[in-house]
This record gives sequence, C-alpha cells and structure tokens, in this order.
Amino acid sequence: MTNDNINHSPCVILVEPQLCENVGMAARAMKNCALKELRLVSPREDHLSDKARAASSNSEEILEQAKVYSSTLEAIGDLQYVLASTARHRDQTKLVLDASDGAREMYKHIMQGAKCGIMFGPERTGLRNEDICLADGIINVPLNPEHCSLNLSQAVLLLGYEYYKLTIGHRSAELVTNHSHAAPKEKVLLFCKHLEDKLSRFANYNDEQKREKLVINLRNIFTRSELTEQELNTLYGIINYLGKKD
Amino acid sequence: MTNDNINHSPCVILVEPQLCENVGMAARAMKNCALKELRLVSPREDHLSDKARAASSNSEEILEQAKVYSSTLEAIGDLQYVLASTARHRDQTKLVLDASDGAREMYKHIMQGAKCGIMFGPERTGLRNEDICLADGIINVPLNPEHCSLNLSQAVLLLGYEYYKLTIGHRSAELVTNHSHAAPKEKVLLFCKHLEDKLSRFANYNDEQKREKLVINLRNIFTRSELTEQELNTLYGIINYLGKKD
Repeated sequence: MTNDNINHSPCVILVEPQLCENVGMAARAMKNCALKELRLVSPREDHLSDKARAASSNSEEILEQAKVYSSTLEAIGDLQYVLASTARHRDQTKLVLDASDGAREMYKHIMQGAKCGIMFGPERTGLRNEDICLADGIINVPLNPEHCSLNLSQAVLLLGYEYYKLTIGHRSAELVTNHSHAAPKEKVLLFCKHLEDKLSRFANYNDEQKREKLVINLRNIFTRSELTEQELNTLYGIINYLGKKD
Repeated sequence: MTNDNINHSPCVILVEPQLCENVGMAARAMKNCALKELRLVSPREDHLSDKARAASSNSEEILEQAKVYSSTLEAIGDLQYVLASTARHRDQTKLVLDASDGAREMYKHIMQGAKCGIMFGPERTGLRNEDICLADGIINVPLNPEHCSLNLSQAVLLLGYEYYKLTIGHRSAELVTNHSHAAPKEKVLLFCKHLEDKLSRFANYNDEQKREKLVINLRNIFTRSELTEQELNTLYGIINYLGKKD
C-alpha cells in the first residue's frame, strides 16, 4: 500500500470471476473511473494472461497489482465499509442503495478515513448469500426491470462512474462523524465466529441448514451496525460473561 | 412510429459503427436502460447478423426494429433536439454537458414533447466535426482524463443510465431499504433492557457511572442496525441460551 491514493478510492473485489477477459475489462472500467485497487477471490482463470491483458486495454498495471485471495472474508478483512453489488436482494435484511447513493455512502466513509470496497459476484450467478451477508449494504443499479442483467465490467463501470462523479464534483459531503473508527471486517467476523462457537448447543444448532441460516442472520446483524473496536470488546465481554457457567 | 413509448425516450443514433457486435452490445445497453429506438448511419457490418444478435443478449427486437440511414443528417432529420456524445470537444462552439446534465436536458425536451436523440461516432475515431455540428450540444462523460476511452456500448450504457434514472422518479427513492419490517423502537429497547438485566453481575456493573455508559453503548449498538422482530427473537434466544447456567 505504498500509493497513498489507493486509500482514497474504494477497492473492487471480484468474487470468483469466471472469465479472465471480464477481469481485464473490469480493470479497464476501473481505470476509466480512476479506481486503482483490484482484489480477486479465487478467479477461475489467470488474470495475468494475454487475453486478460488485451481486454484491459492499457490498464495492465491494475491487473499486475491485483491481489488474489482464497476467500471473500480474507479479501475484505482489512476493510471497514463494504457494499455488495447485486441485482437481487435475496431476502436479506440489509440496507439497499441505488448506485448513486451507494457511491455517496462510500465516498462519505472514505472521506472519514475508512477503507472501503465494492464486491461483485461471478458472472453467471452473482454474489452468494454468504458473501452478501458480509457487506454493510447492497448496491442495486437502477435499470429496466425487464432487462437488468449487466455484464461484470459494465457493473463495475456504472458504480465506478458514480463514484468518480463525486470525486470531481466537490459536493461537500455532509460529514457524519462517528464512523471513523469502524472495526475492520476481520475483527467483526472474528467476533461473529466467537459467538457462533459459543452456540454449539443452541437450539437447532446441529441442524446444518438451520445453523447456516442462523450464522447468516447473525452476521447480517453485526455487520450492519458498523461496530467500533471498542464496541466489539464490549460485546465480547458480554458474551463471555453470559456464557460463563458458575 | 406506432409505439407511443418510443417518443418518450431519446433514440440512439450510431454513426458508422464498425463492428456488428458493438451494435448488438449497444442494443443490450439500450434495453438495460429502457431505450427502444436505434438508428444506424451506414453501418459497416450487418446489424442483423448472428454475431450482432448474440451480442445483444435478448435485445434482438431493438436490432430488428433499427432503421438504417445513409447519412447522419437523414438519420436525425425528424428529431428536434440532438446531443452528440464525444470525449473531445474539437474546438466547436457548442454547449458541453456532462452525462447527467445532458440526460436532464434531453428529459426536459422530451417532457415538452420534442423528439430527441443521442449520437455516437465510429468506435475508432468518434464523431466527426461534420456530425457534431449538427447537434444542439455535446455530451462529455466525466471520466478519468488519463484513460477516458469507452467502448461504444459502454458510452451508450452510461448515457442511457443517466436518462433512465430521471425517468424512474427524480431520486424520490432516496434510500430504498429492506427495512420495512424494522422492529418498533419499543421492542428494541425491551430487548436492550432484557440484556441489561442479565448483566447484573457483569464487570463494573455496580459502578453506576460505568453501568450507564455500558447501557448507552449497548443501545447504540442495537438501535443502529434497525433490527427486525425476527432478528430480535434470534438475539433473545441467544442471550437466554448463553445466560442459562447448567
């Protein structure tokens, strides 16, 4: 993270992209919008292949600097505010923002010093619920409901474009203060795991399906509130206190 | 012009598009944004070819209804307000609008009953001066000046998107949220109290000042996330489970 500017724009996280051309085209769209940091979760193809480079059309440095992760959690661990781009809401209780409001939220958080990212799912299926529940909110690009499928790079372009407009527009971002110290995602998720571990004998917890649903519910609850580290410590204290059999 | 709706959105005029795939992808982008009318000026390839159809990804009707003209003038002859999309201003004395202002001007004219269109030039060169001078103004999409080249369909998408946003309601949906079922505050507070009761012997809990601070922290955490009633029930279950001494 030598480049200071990197911290001043959201990173783009592509979860399990299928085609390397699409990764290349996403890099091109990023460069169009002055976004710099690309993160890839288990890409199926090589993002440094000739095909990917050609598709990036002079945005190869973004591909070369891209980091590869083996899980979404790992890829967003150090981020403090993450939005998930998805056309469907999937019945999750999450804030849903349109592209321009999403960009504005992102911009606000970045102005307050937070590290931010936008997640995009695999071309064919989009983001899975397990990934969406890690995000602070959902971005839903307003498009013709009869034909709203976008290809990956177009989705990156539209969101990047909305973000870019803010960075050049000097719209005085109303400062909402207290979000400056939101804990990075990895700490929030560590807490969730800690809580989940404590629930080993909780109702239905050995029913795999119900357990998964509960885990997603809990993660939604605790990612939604942008907890600070201090608040996490409070919650740890409470869980441990409650869980102590005396 | 049998379809009334056609008059309620700008038509897209592609001047001498080179590749039929790009025409297909432009049609797809149009459909994404509920634009219907495509006009082609001397396309180099057949816009009804299999390649074009495949690229349109279920937007074939736009290709099939497209009209082909032999000159730009002919293609825009019946229109009353035309904007030219180009990255360069080419020293013309013309109104230059960004994409959202351009869309707004277009929308205003359409609301007043005018027939409008947006012109796009050939992939490699963009619009020629002779074409630009026919337009009422220039639309210049704000993008990273170091890398502002967009492919044709992306340019159509961005302008179509800006237009589409206007048609769906003036940002009246500031925050579209999934929060319709957020629990009423009284239920959230009841939960907080329940949790607080369970903490009677929690660290520092008999220090009045520290207790107050903790209570405020907890209420902040749990009011901030707009919990649903179902989520509250989950949390009750967990607190009770954890607090059970066995």
